[in-house]
This record gives sequence, structure tokens and C-alpha cells, in this order.
Amino acid sequence: MTVNGDMIIGRRTVRGNAGTASAFNPATRANLEPAFGLAHPEQLQEACLLAEQAFDAYRNVPLEGRARFLEAIAQQILDIGPLLIERASAESGLPAARLEGERMRTVNQLRLFAKVVRDGYFLEATIDSPLPQRTPPRADLRLRKIPLGPVAVFGASNFPLAFSVAGGDTASALAAGCPVVVKAHSAHLGTSELVGKAVQKAAIECDMPEGVFSMLIGEGRSIGQALVDHPAIKAVGFTGSRQGGISLMQTAAARKEPIPVYAEMSSINPVFVLPGALAEKGAALGAGFVDSLTLGVGQFCTNPGLVIGLAGEALDAFRTAAATALQGKGAGTMLTAGIHKAYTDAIERRTGVAGLELVARGTAEGQGHAAQAALYQCDAATYLATPALEEEIFGPASVLISCRDEAEIVAVARHLEGQLTATVHATGADHGIAAALLPTLERKAGRILFNGWPTGVEVSHAMVHGGPFPATSDSRSTSVGATAIERFLRPVCYQDVPADLLPEALRDGNPLGLARVVDGTLTTAS
Amino acid sequence: MTVNGDMIIGRRTVRGNAGTASAFNPATRANLEPAFGLAHPEQLQEACLLAEQAFDAYRNVPLEGRARFLEAIAQQILDIGPLLIERASAESGLPAARLEGERMRTVNQLRLFAKVVRDGYFLEATIDSPLPQRTPPRADLRLRKIPLGPVAVFGASNFPLAFSVAGGDTASALAAGCPVVVKAHSAHLGTSELVGKAVQKAAIECDMPEGVFSMLIGEGRSIGQALVDHPAIKAVGFTGSRQGGISLMQTAAARKEPIPVYAEMSSINPVFVLPGALAEKGAALGAGFVDSLTLGVGQFCTNPGLVIGLAGEALDAFRTAAATALQGKGAGTMLTAGIHKAYTDAIERRTGVAGLELVARGTAEGQGHAAQAALYQCDAATYLATPALEEEIFGPASVLISCRDEAEIVAVARHLEGQLTATVHATGADHGIAAALLPTLERKAGRILFNGWPTGVEVSHAMVHGGPFPATSDSRSTSVGATAIERFLRPVCYQDVPADLLPEALRDGNPLGLARVVDGTLTTAS
Repeated sequence: MTVNGDMIIGRRTVRGNAGTASAFNPATRANLEPAFGLAHPEQLQEACLLAEQAFDAYRNVPLEGRARFLEAIAQQILDIGPLLIERASAESGLPAARLEGERMRTVNQLRLFAKVVRDGYFLEATIDSPLPQRTPPRADLRLRKIPLGPVAVFGASNFPLAFSVAGGDTASALAAGCPVVVKAHSAHLGTSELVGKAVQKAAIECDMPEGVFSMLIGEGRSIGQALVDHPAIKAVGFTGSRQGGISLMQTAAARKEPIPVYAEMSSINPVFVLPGALAEKGAALGAGFVDSLTLGVGQFCTNPGLVIGLAGEALDAFRTAAATALQGKGAGTMLTAGIHKAYTDAIERRTGVAGLELVARGTAEGQGHAAQAALYQCDAATYLATPALEEEIFGPASVLISCRDEAEIVAVARHLEGQLTATVHATGADHGIAAALLPTLERKAGRILFNGWPTGVEVSHAMVHGGPFPATSDSRSTSVGATAIERFLRPVCYQDVPADLLPEALRDGNPLGLARVVDGTLTTAS
Repeated sequence: MTVNGDMIIGRRTVRGNAGTASAFNPATRANLEPAFGLAHPEQLQEACLLAEQAFDAYRNVPLEGRARFLEAIAQQILDIGPLLIERASAESGLPAARLEGERMRTVNQLRLFAKVVRDGYFLEATIDSPLPQRTPPRADLRLRKIPLGPVAVFGASNFPLAFSVAGGDTASALAAGCPVVVKAHSAHLGTSELVGKAVQKAAIECDMPEGVFSMLIGEGRSIGQALVDHPAIKAVGFTGSRQGGISLMQTAAARKEPIPVYAEMSSINPVFVLPGALAEKGAALGAGFVDSLTLGVGQFCTNPGLVIGLAGEALDAFRTAAATALQGKGAGTMLTAGIHKAYTDAIERRTGVAGLELVARGTAEGQGHAAQAALYQCDAATYLATPALEEEIFGPASVLISCRDEAEIVAVARHLEGQLTATVHATGADHGIAAALLPTLERKAGRILFNGWPTGVEVSHAMVHGGPFPATSDSRSTSVGATAIERFLRPVCYQDVPADLLPEALRDGNPLGLARVVDGTLTTAS
């Protein structure tokens, strides 16, 4: 496989004919070959119509066929070999080892959704038997979930594999039975082309209807918005900035037929270090915190941008250890010039904030668009009075908040906006205050974790990578984990539908062996 | 219990102090005593803050307590006795027998949600066991759903009991663990007060936290919009007009924190009478159709506003039978002066539509705001070319569309907007065309029914009362049936949370005896 600068429209590999763009190496600040063609609106139209035409055929592929398609995508991605890692590394500045891990995560994610499809829990098959003797009689009622329709997926810059062309949004939408049209992220165009071709090969190999997958290249403000506005598109998956997400939400809400947008946007991921934990291991926590903060140059959605603790010697020890660790962290290359500029601008704005003290900075070395880490400190009163401190800084910067008492810790928690995660470090002695914090944290975050760090998002059944606005546009769902499939489904009830016209999932005898709610009781019986 | 003109704010019964409004008898066109006080913005603020304060306490009431509260509401509604039926009949023009049936439906709905709460399927409890030996190790991950927060519910005019103060939205929100603030519908203020007091009595009797339920009176454009805009409110349930629903969607989307709106709005509920069914029982179907069309003076969300058949003798027989039946239907009193005026205006507009023929009208007698039923006919080409014919007429009016061939039947189906229901009348001989229609109907409607009429919505596990826009604002859910509870929930993941801090639903040993997905497999094991 080679990188040619192409897009994917159904079974064809085509060159965008509305101008060109180049991929860029943020470490060397050099453009990468070849140039990519940008999608013309007619090419977008073509991709969307193909998706629309593929929808009924694709959603009616038996579950086993859909599962095999997902597994074939995983295999095709592996089959690209070292080229994928090399290209992704050149385009993102991320090291090979991290990208190899991310590739395995992407592959496992596709395989997890193959299992989700085979299990069929997502169909939520439900049957109410008829009651002909009742007054009035009850009809035969059967419910299953069906896919929404073609889904627009926006690749994210910070995970060029796991949250991009064949990442969680695409995997869960395809698993649900929705065709996907990807808008490739301009920060990794070559990586996107390689993965896009892998999906295309898998679709052809598995004889999927043409249009089940397409991938376009273009500006978010033009092609991205036009994609969300296209009548064939019935839902949107996005991971990126708050501004970008809100803009897509507005476009989707203003359509003649509004559609759901699943935008994972911004989160500062507060970490509460409770007194017992601080006393027992304050210094070790300080060092561990800095490792999490600087992981991937702080470019994780779950990067810990806020640490809250009780003022005192133990918090001082935490701070000293964090400062020392941070000063030893070299500046890492950020993903794009724009992200780097936004980071340095945000750091500059912090300089002028009254009551905010700079604790430490990382070393300034590093090549290309390198980000120097930064740790600040202020007291809770300053934090509560300074809205600017609530803004996410995308990168390795965090604020340590010292509280006078437990009530102030709870006050800071209550003041938070919606978050992807909330972390608590606690020993047994802290369970009282932890219990008092928990109801607030549940209301603020999609994932609550104890004695760990928020970076690192498992792809499994119980994961939630979501949370109240502005962490996401829709707190009712997750973009990572098995239940991400629920975002792309809607229920349909079949009333007195003749047996031969019923979907297999709802037939008598339970031919698919599903877990179904029959007359109010969950059962796998036939 | 008496009607005093009051609102409910937590445990207090208070009089709105921002003006007054009167209930109205649409049959006699006379105001009803007493006058009602309208909510002052400060009273709205009070109700919302109480709901916010009640939220954590209410959502942590054990499931059994929550279920008993729902059952107590049901009993308190029954205990109001004949006064409730008398008042509802006076305010709505609906006959006592219909309202008695609706009361039983409302009571059964509350009891169904009590079962839903006890079963606990809605918690979607999920556990992934830790894998400490894996590289990297997997944490202990546990997911459950929690309620969104206080919910604003708008009473609907057409079901003063089942879709109003203690109707499906309120029952499912309370079942989910959300406090509820109702905006009473101005068309049945006295009924609302009686039912509101029943809920309040049940809350006090069951020792629920104050603020779990409040009910305000006021204009939709002022108090209704202010309610949706209040920061304490986290979701909205609404049944009413397209215009009203879209207006609430816009308010909710423009909030600092956008919130979900579940608006059930407009649907013309197409009925496809296929050739075999027409040939076998065209005349009987014509009469059955008119019964469904005129039920409740056509004021059902699922009223059949469109009938599609193959032109020919059998369709003529259907039409003749329908015309005869319709001419025998007396004009019934509509719910409000506004609805009656909208109906007569819409009928007037139909007069000028080119290609549209009037088939028959009901008799013009009837008292008060009486609606004379109307049946029109046109060919498919006219229908496809006339957007005005897609608009819902709320009331007993319908259009019969004659198609030249099966392809035109499918073309009409494809042309439809989103619907609550799609009905097919078919014999075995029709299964070919029915199978060809089904994929389109699935994409257009929330419920597909065979050989029946769409009016009559069962409250059960497999019911879907929802559908793509503009039938509802959110096709991913239903407003009737057990799964309506899902609208008011969001997932939270607990990672490595110490055993004593875990919610009971997620504890080892499965103390609540729930169905849980453990390491990817659904089980009720402990």
C-alpha cells in the first residue's frame, strides 16, 4: 500500500479535485509528500448518496457478516505493516511505540465490536405477547433497535488511529449497521488514506454494499459542515475542540431534520488528592501525576488539568515532587502548528492571572512544535472567582488548587463544569470525605476513578468516555466501549406483523439465540 | 379534594401571584370556576431549586422505595374518585367513559414503571473484572446508569390524564430518579391541580424529599420557556404541536448547557391498504378506518391522516364505505378553542388545493367547538407535488391517495416525513409488496402495524411511541412504554472504586439480584 494523496468514495479511490493540501511533519516543520486532493462538493454528494443507497442493504447483512467485516478491517489495518506506524509518526510527532500500542487498541476495538454485534444485546429485542381476551385486546408487540442511517465521522488529531478513520466512532457506527462517511483530519492525511484503504479492502473482501464506507479530505469549515448538513447523514461522531464541536451541533440543530451530534470536546479532568492519600504518599503521587500530565505531550482528552488538595505540608510535598518531576520533562513535539500555538497562547494568558503562581515548568528543549510543560498553583477562592481557570488548556499544563478545608474541596467540585473523568486519591481514612464528594462527581463526570490517573481509557464493556456538557454534547452516551453502539440506534415496534415479515431477531423460537425481554422478563429462551 | 386554583411547589400548595387564568368548558363555551393563579418567575425559581435540592436524595432512594412512590401516586389518583372524571370531562369535552379508560391507563402506566424500577434492567449494570497481569493491566470497571437531573414536563391537551401531570413523561422521569417540574396545560387546569395534589400526597406519604414534584401554571411562551431555560432543569418532556416542540428545542439548544428535549410533535400516520386486503374487505376497512379517524374527535397523535391504495374498484369500494361511515359521524367537541380554530382554518386551506377532491364530510351538528370530519382524495402525483398535503391536520381529517401501481405506493412511502406509526393492511397475497415497503416504513416510523389501526397505544415493554423528526425531536427514544425511562439516564463508569463506596447495583455478590453484563456476558449470577 502507498500514500497517493487520494480519497475513498465507495469502491473507488479518487483524487479530490477542489484544490490540494499537504501533510506536515511537526517535528521537522516540513511538508510531507505527496500532495492530497481536496473534496469537491460533488464528490461529497457522491459519497453521501452512496452511503444512503448502501444503508438498507448494509443494515440487513446478517449479524455474523457484519461482525466479520469489522474483523476484516482489523486484519487489513495490521496488514499495512510498518508503513502505517512510520507515516503516523511522521505526521503526528508521536513515537512509534505509542502508535504501535494505539494500533493494537484500534484493532482490539474493532474486534470488541464484532463481539458486540454477535452478542446482539444492542438490539434490545423485546416481545409482548398478545392478550386477545383482555378488554381491550392487546396486540402482538415486538421491539428491536435499528440503525439511524449514514453517520459522519470526524477524525481526531490526537489519536490518529484509535479516534480517527477506523476508530471508535467508525467501529461503533458500522457495528450498529450504519454506513460511515469519514472527514479525514488534516493533521494525518497519509495515515488516514492508508487506514481508509484498509477499510475499503475489507468492505470489498466481505462483499459489503458499495458506499458502506467513504473518506473525504477537506476543510472542516467547508467539507465538514457540508457533510453534517447533508440530508443523507443521520448522526455525527466528533472528537476535537469545544469550538469545533459546538459549531457542528449548531449546524445539526439548524437542519430541516435535526440530527444527533456526539461531540467529545473538552475536559480538565480534576484529580482530588484527599488528606490520607497525601499524607501516605504525597511525593509519589506528585511524580505519578506529572507522568500522566505529560503523557503524549498532554494531548489526551483525559489529561489531568486540575489537582485539588488540602493545604498543608503533605500538599507541599506533593507539589515539590511534582515540580521536580516536571522540571525533568523535556518539551515534546505537539501534533500540529495550530495546537502548539493555542498552547503557547494559553500559557501566556495564564501569566497575567491574579493569584495564580507558577510552580514549575518543564525543560524548554525539544524540536519543532515542542511544548514546555507547566504547573501552576492557586487557592480555592482564586479558582472559584476566576472563570479563565476553568478553560481546558490542550497540552501539558495543570493547576494545583489548595483548599483550606474539606468544605472548600466540595465547593470546588460543585463549581466544575461537565467532565470526562474525575479522579480521587484516597486511603481508607478518606472514605468519609470521598463519600461526600461522590454524588457531586457523579453529576459532573462520565468516569470516576480511584487511586489511578485518568489517562488510559480501556476499551471494554463498562467503559464510559463521555460526560455532561461541555465534556461532550450528549451525556447520555459514551464514545469508547461496547455501549458506544447505542448512539447510532433507534427503536422500532412491530405490531401484529406477520411471522414471515418479522425481522429474525424478533421471530418466535428466538432463531438468533438473543437475550430478549419477553413479557417483561429477560430471557434467552427460544 | 377540591379545585382551588392552586399550584404545587414541593410540599406546599400555593397560589400563583402573576395574574390569573380560567379553565374553560369547550362544549358550553363557558369559563369554569375557580380562577387559577399564574406562576411568578420567583415561584418558578423556587420549584426548580427545590427540584435541584431534592435530586441527590431522590435518586438515592432505594429502588423499592421509588417503586412504591409510583404505586402510591396511582392509588392517590384513583382515590380522587368521580370528581377527577367530572372535571376532566368539563375541561376537555371528552366523554366520561373515555376518561375512565384513560385514568386506568394512567394508573397502569405508573404501576408498569414501578415494575421497571424493581426489575432494574434500566440500570444497565455492567462489570469488567480487573486484569492485573495484562500489559498494561486492566482496572476494575463498573458501569451503571444514573438519572440526568430535574426534568421539565409539559402536559398535553389531548390526554388530560395519560400525557399530562402524572402521565408517561412524569412516570418515566420519576422512575429514572429525576425530580419533575410540570407545566400544567391551560386546557385542563382543574384536572391538573387534582392530579398534582395526588402526586404531592403520595410524595409526602412515601416520605420523598421535598421538591421531587412541583407543578406550575402559566403561559408556554413565558413560564414554559423559562422552565426549559432554567439551569436546574436537565431534560424536557413535551407532547404537542410541531411549532411548540421546535420552539422548546431551540431554547434548550441555546442554553449555556444544552439539554435533551423529548418532544412528540406531529404525525400523519399513513395507512397502506394493499391490493389483496382491499379486494378481500375493502368496504369493511373503509368503515374501520373512519372509526379510527374520528376517535376522540381525531385528536390522537396517531390519528390516520393518510390512506394509500391502488386505484381501482376495490379502492372505490373502500372510499364509498368510508364516505358513508363518515357522513354518519356527528361533529364532536374539540379540546380547545385554539385547536378548533386551527382545524377549521386547515380545512379551509384544503379547499383551494388543486387536484384535491372532497369525498365526504361528517354531519355538522354538535355543540360548542365541534369539528366536522372530512375525507379528501387525490392521486399520488398530486400528493407528491403538494407539500401542503404533508402537514398534519389535528382533527378528524384525512386524505385518500390513489396510486397507479405498486411503484407509486413505494414512492409515496419514500416521500413521507418521519411518523409515529405506519400501518399496513395486507393479506397473504400482499406479502411481496409489504416486504418491499417494510424497509422504507422502518426508516420513517417508530411503530409499524399490520391489519389494525394506529389509534390505541399499548403501555407495555415493546411499545414505541416515537419516530424520526418531525414526529418527535429525538427518534432514539419512545415516550410510551417501559423503555421511555431510558430518556432520562446517562452512564457513569466507576474505575477501581473501593467496595464500600460502590453503588449497591455494582457491588460484588449482586445484592440487588440484577441482570448485569459481567465480562461481556449477561447474567443474573451473584
